[in-house]
Amino acid sequence: MNFCSQCGAPVSFRIPSGDSLPRHVCDHCSTIHYSNPKLVVGAIPEWEDKILLCRRAIEPRHGKWTLPSGFMENHETTAEGAARETAEEACARIEVGEMYSLINVAHISQVHILYRARLLDLDFRPGEESLETRLFSEAEIPWDELAFRSIALSLRLYFEDRRAGQYRFHVADIPAPVHPA
Amino acid sequence: MNFCSQCGAPVSFRIPSGDSLPRHVCDHCSTIHYSNPKLVVGAIPEWEDKILLCRRAIEPRHGKWTLPSGFMENHETTAEGAARETAEEACARIEVGEMYSLINVAHISQVHILYRARLLDLDFRPGEESLETRLFSEAEIPWDELAFRSIALSLRLYFEDRRAGQYRFHVADIPAPVHPA
Repeated sequence: MNFCSQCGAPVSFRIPSGDSLPRHVCDHCSTIHYSNPKLVVGAIPEWEDKILLCRRAIEPRHGKWTLPSGFMENHETTAEGAARETAEEACARIEVGEMYSLINVAHISQVHILYRARLLDLDFRPGEESLETRLFSEAEIPWDELAFRSIALSLRLYFEDRRAGQYRFHVADIPAPVHPA
Repeated sequence: MNFCSQCGAPVSFRIPSGDSLPRHVCDHCSTIHYSNPKLVVGAIPEWEDKILLCRRAIEPRHGKWTLPSGFMENHETTAEGAARETAEEACARIEVGEMYSLINVAHISQVHILYRARLLDLDFRPGEESLETRLFSEAEIPWDELAFRSIALSLRLYFEDRRAGQYRFHVADIPAPVHPA
């Protein structure tokens, strides 16, 4: 951020009085510009013993596999966001179930939330941001070709829970990479 | 938003190509400025059969009671944010426990997350944003003087769970008020 989005004057980066963290502050109109973590919402769409994955047509991780998910939009709920992302990325209709995982990815200021979901039909296909959409059984999951650690962790927990016969809600933190990507 | 925070040129509000929602777009440097929901994180600090509430010294809801909570900051986890807010608003040290509730407040584009927490000592006092900090038993909760519906809902669920002998994780949505405040 270089300029105030309110008045267009240059901003400075300093700790406002009464605050404890540096912010982008406009010395012309006094607006303080806060930056906050972003929510990513998505689904684990189930069809019999398989789940639906999408192969990414966009960066980051172009060509890698992921669960349908993306940035939550204003004026929607987390469940509505999960259904919207599944429609956008896989053109798929789901019934959103229980919240399954909430994963902190603090080094990139993101929180990832995934829901279990029931795929309502097999009429799915790649949306604009996907190269391919496909159902995978546990044995078929392309573990080495998954796009994100939060997705891999959630899928690992999901199949563990399924084998144990009970799905639980999971909260976890993804540590910063030792060698930042 | 009136001006591009990158280059300072005026922005327009329109649907970018390939997108489905209107965004603030800079026609000078082509930056698309996204606005996303904010996370509010907080705690239900427990001491024996009582919980710690703060009376707000700031708007909105100046003078009303709330659980220690506030906007999540970049580069922290949801649990770290809950502990930080409790330290800031009540100068209190807690051990953060299980995530207790996640409440969508879609009409103001917020998601509120509360954790159960163990107050580590009684050395609490109002922080800069609080007028008063106090322990309340269930019978003492000032239900008509609570600041936010998400707080009232979480406390109601909390005491119901406590009576039932088992705390569960709750996901809920707060509807828009019929007469917007």
